[in-house]
Order: sequence, then structure tokens, then C-alpha cells
Amino acid sequence: MKCLLIYDIPDDRARGKIADFCLDYGLDRLQYSAFMGDLSPNHQEELMLKIERRLGKAAGRIDLFAICQEDWRKRLSLSQGMSPQGENHE
Amino acid sequence: MKCLLIYDIPDDRARGKIADFCLDYGLDRLQYSAFMGDLSPNHQEELMLKIERRLGKAAGRIDLFAICQEDWRKRLSLSQGMSPQGENHE
Repeated sequence: MKCLLIYDIPDDRARGKIADFCLDYGLDRLQYSAFMGDLSPNHQEELMLKIERRLGKAAGRIDLFAICQEDWRKRLSLSQGMSPQGENHE
Repeated sequence: MKCLLIYDIPDDRARGKIADFCLDYGLDRLQYSAFMGDLSPNHQEELMLKIERRLGKAAGRIDLFAICQEDWRKRLSLSQGMSPQGENHE
């Protein structure tokens, strides 16, 4: 099931660690703070729990959407001059 | 139709202007770089065209998803200590 995970985590170290979790779960970077990929419902829950534990009391917002094929197909995208690995932010 | 627009725009001025476009179209800020709200297919196209024109040659990536009620209902979210207006970033 195609998933989109987006986050807003001000703390650099927590954000970096949580990006690693996303990559560990096989997600690909769509934007600097957005990851996409296939996750079963169980893995969605598991990843969110790992993120919650790592975040601890730090501020953050994370949203994970499972998006059906039909909605995924209809997305509108515009991309220019960006590195998918997020180097624009370093 | 419930929509989610996410962007990654390194240039501060372009990003600010494009955030204003999203608010003008009645979207609400979900995260610092993510907006949600109801947009017809026509308004989705129109907003993306306005964004494309404003972005010009600046680097950026924008993705707009129309998400069905069922998928929207099943999203997983975690939020703590965050201002929805993005003040954590100022």
C-alpha cells in the first residue's frame, strides 16, 4: 500500500534519526521532509510507534497517509532544480 | 475534495509567497510545509499553475494529492509542542 509520510521536526538530531527510520522501512525521499513507499498497515503502526518513542518530549508533527492507487495516480507534481536526497538543505 | 499540498522550496521569498497562495485558496496549514483543504480539480490545476509561474526558475518541488475520504480517515498523526502556524520555524 502506497504511503506518504510527512514530518515537521525542528530538532536536527531527532529529525535526522527519524529520516533514517523512514529509509530503514524502505521509504524513498520525495521531498526533504516527505517520504513515500509501500507499507503494510502493521508497518505503518510500527514506524509511527518508533518515531513516537524517538521523538520523546521533543516538538514535532508527523502525518502518515496510505493513499490508494487511484489518488496516487492523480497527484499533481512540479519539480525543478531539486536534489531528491535533500542536499538543497545542507 | 480533500487535498494535501506539500512543498520543498529553499528560497524564503518564493516559499512565503507560495504559502500565501495556498492560504488564498482556503487551505489550512497542517505542517510548516504542508497544507490541507478542499479543492476542486479545476482549483487544483489553477493553484499549481500559479505556483509554477511564481516559482519561475527557482528550485522547488511541489506535490498535490487529492485524498479520498476513506484514506483521509485512516491517516496516522502525531503532534506535540508544535504551532500550526509554523512559528517553530521563525
